[in-house]
Amino acid sequence: MNVGNLGEFGLISRIAGQVKPGAGVEVGIGDDAAVTSPTAGSLTLTTTDMLVEDIHFDLSLCDPITLGRKSLSVNLSDIAAMGGEPRHFLLSMAVPSCTSLEFIDDFIRGTLSMADQFGVSLIGGDTCSSKGGIVISITVIGEQVPERVVRRSGATPGDLVFVTGTLGDSALGLELLKKGERGCRATDRHLDPCPRVREGVALAEAGIPTAMIDVSDGLLADLGHILEQSAAGARLELDKIPLSSFFRERCRTLCDQSISLALAGGEDYELLFTAPASRKQEISAILQRLGTPVTAIGEITDGRRLHVISGDGSEYRITKRGFNHFA
Amino acid sequence: MNVGNLGEFGLISRIAGQVKPGAGVEVGIGDDAAVTSPTAGSLTLTTTDMLVEDIHFDLSLCDPITLGRKSLSVNLSDIAAMGGEPRHFLLSMAVPSCTSLEFIDDFIRGTLSMADQFGVSLIGGDTCSSKGGIVISITVIGEQVPERVVRRSGATPGDLVFVTGTLGDSALGLELLKKGERGCRATDRHLDPCPRVREGVALAEAGIPTAMIDVSDGLLADLGHILEQSAAGARLELDKIPLSSFFRERCRTLCDQSISLALAGGEDYELLFTAPASRKQEISAILQRLGTPVTAIGEITDGRRLHVISGDGSEYRITKRGFNHFA
Repeated sequence: MNVGNLGEFGLISRIAGQVKPGAGVEVGIGDDAAVTSPTAGSLTLTTTDMLVEDIHFDLSLCDPITLGRKSLSVNLSDIAAMGGEPRHFLLSMAVPSCTSLEFIDDFIRGTLSMADQFGVSLIGGDTCSSKGGIVISITVIGEQVPERVVRRSGATPGDLVFVTGTLGDSALGLELLKKGERGCRATDRHLDPCPRVREGVALAEAGIPTAMIDVSDGLLADLGHILEQSAAGARLELDKIPLSSFFRERCRTLCDQSISLALAGGEDYELLFTAPASRKQEISAILQRLGTPVTAIGEITDGRRLHVISGDGSEYRITKRGFNHFA
Repeated sequence: MNVGNLGEFGLISRIAGQVKPGAGVEVGIGDDAAVTSPTAGSLTLTTTDMLVEDIHFDLSLCDPITLGRKSLSVNLSDIAAMGGEPRHFLLSMAVPSCTSLEFIDDFIRGTLSMADQFGVSLIGGDTCSSKGGIVISITVIGEQVPERVVRRSGATPGDLVFVTGTLGDSALGLELLKKGERGCRATDRHLDPCPRVREGVALAEAGIPTAMIDVSDGLLADLGHILEQSAAGARLELDKIPLSSFFRERCRTLCDQSISLALAGGEDYELLFTAPASRKQEISAILQRLGTPVTAIGEITDGRRLHVISGDGSEYRITKRGFNHFA
């Protein structure tokens, strides 16, 4: 059975039937708009990401369950990067009529499993047909009190630059997937990234980050966004970039190409943030409680430039900063 | 010059440069998420619609300015149907790299002109490349106090069924566009519908509608949604369906096919609502002040069926209810 047999309203009912009632949801799927009750005193955070077949995902390399998970997690990651608590989401899909119900069921199962993991509820969306490939668009709504919202624009010279977890695994994973490898740490990181929601909230609630962003385009590109909006520069130490043991092993001799995976590969969905050096211990303690590694990789500077310094003190020549659609 | 020359971030800057600061917007375009301040005591209404090239629009039949306007107005119409005040919106676009900047500029100009007309502000979105056609996804956020939100589920036997404006013009317009006609009332209604935002808010604030929906799929399909959610039936009088003079003239002898344009054509973006008969005069007065015609076209009944009665008292046989993706 495919989507064409079920029809639009059958498909919506099928999805709605799998959704549990969510906190703060007055009207969920099935009316003209969803109705939710915002928490008094909080600001509303809203983010949206579109995933296009053969641009963002390749159905020969991923399964529908992990595609569903990732479609939501890339959005949750944006709320995390503001220090927000994600609350609700809307899911729109354009799919060819010949799409199997099994595919849709698995995709929804994946999306809802990620939603459960972070306590967010599906409140609405749109389903329509596509004559081309599949297009997914998700909007996540989150909240945070005004004084805890973290923007990209507050990095100050002297602040340290921190990043959670390790970088480059996702980009390495994509390379490996293209070569036919499956089921290793790097391919899993690429296909099913874990958004750093708890980390973002914990850091924001401690009032720590002066600026924060998630690493989606690539470390250098995303740090570039912080620098641009903070009107500052930065000096990164190449040797401090956190790499997983898997990454080090697979890229034994760290040639330029593999360093580039960590610096510009993107889709790591780690949090990149700046904070005064005086808060370094507190940062370590908070993230240790959450079981999440964190590394200081450099410093914010006065100049407007981004320098990457190699272990021998020489400047590393940046050849690629990250992903740019249309480029 | 095309989107490929400008790149993703150049495109975002170009769009952001055209956006005026909006009320209640703490952080707009250019961070990980938009930040807005909800009005104390109000609920948040959220709706999203995706528009796919060659499914929802045909670039040989529309220009980018009106496409931009319509992309937003179909979403505003959903907020109107809940009785809500639209406040903000997010715009996502997947476009081929070869798309001209002129196209994008015109599309954005159209979207922002509709936004200005209804006092809503663009606060974020996503831009990415597409290997297929253009896909647009808009999410609109609105507000209303709890006791004024109008759902689909409150229609009660004895209520009258009302519809604003006239029906069928949009579907007729699409037929005419396909035959090469341009610039008439019906083609304009199809390409550039006006969402009934003021009407929806005015009716909701007077506490009048027991149920409300916008006519997007077609009168019978949309009334069907109200009936299903209200567990009720309805009896419509065919002779009372409001038709424009243009529609009557172009469909001189109202054969089944042209009646079907009004009953099932869809994309009218009029408000269809139910209310106690006792409030009929008040409804007329409110909508007259706004310059918007309104017509009582039938009654909610006990049974679960939808009957359409012809002028001679016989039952009209329904052959088509409305649009259904994948069908």
